[in-house]
Amino acid sequence: MSHSSSAASPNFDVGPNFGGGPARLLPVIAQDYQSGRVLMMAWMNEEAYAETMRTRQACYFSRSRNSLWRKGETSGHRQRVVTVQIDCDADCILLQVEQLGAACHDGYASCFYRTVQDDLSVLIDEPRLVDPDSVYRQNPAD
Amino acid sequence: MSHSSSAASPNFDVGPNFGGGPARLLPVIAQDYQSGRVLMMAWMNEEAYAETMRTRQACYFSRSRNSLWRKGETSGHRQRVVTVQIDCDADCILLQVEQLGAACHDGYASCFYRTVQDDLSVLIDEPRLVDPDSVYRQNPAD
Repeated sequence: MSHSSSAASPNFDVGPNFGGGPARLLPVIAQDYQSGRVLMMAWMNEEAYAETMRTRQACYFSRSRNSLWRKGETSGHRQRVVTVQIDCDADCILLQVEQLGAACHDGYASCFYRTVQDDLSVLIDEPRLVDPDSVYRQNPAD
Repeated sequence: MSHSSSAASPNFDVGPNFGGGPARLLPVIAQDYQSGRVLMMAWMNEEAYAETMRTRQACYFSRSRNSLWRKGETSGHRQRVVTVQIDCDADCILLQVEQLGAACHDGYASCFYRTVQDDLSVLIDEPRLVDPDSVYRQNPAD
């Protein structure tokens, strides 16, 4: 991702590079495995990655809560992981997922529901799939 | 992206939120506008975003070089920006682009050319589009 060469490259054959500190977070992109739509971007630490690989359900690391975030645990809007890819520098992860319900906590299918126009104004041109108030009673971050 | 609510929300109607420091970097995802394939993940500061919106050619911020990174300036592998979207927290940007040549400096169509298998081993199952040595003479990070 940084597109820099390193004299001491990590071993990319073994997966993402969580080296560089005990709590290194890597950015993760989740994409609908059928439509290709990008659903959200979040973060994983090594523990979240290991759980995701083991369970095939997306598990991220919530920076605001400083804990594992099992996507959909409250809302039921889980992500079944179909494919996992890593980038050239092994510091970004791409998931192809089957999304149940809405990926976005605002109730939209994707977190990227706002399009920036040529005049820099922002347009929302899709409907909410679900009413967030009906889904999140205790935990608006799920 | 953090999926946290804030009492003092930025004004999401005006685009990505580059507040929070003079040099705040936001993650940016570039996706092929036709195939939907995710090509790469990089970073923008406010200046890179402004240039991208003005020129409709992807301009990132290189963390390793600490300067604007006009994608393809050396290689010719530019990205024409078709659509710009921001996420629910206005802290991640999604570009749909027309990619000329190879997005990845390793010569692959996408930086995400490595797939993690169920046994956690990593598989490359696509060819290089270009030989990096033939493209990058001076600047391997372009």
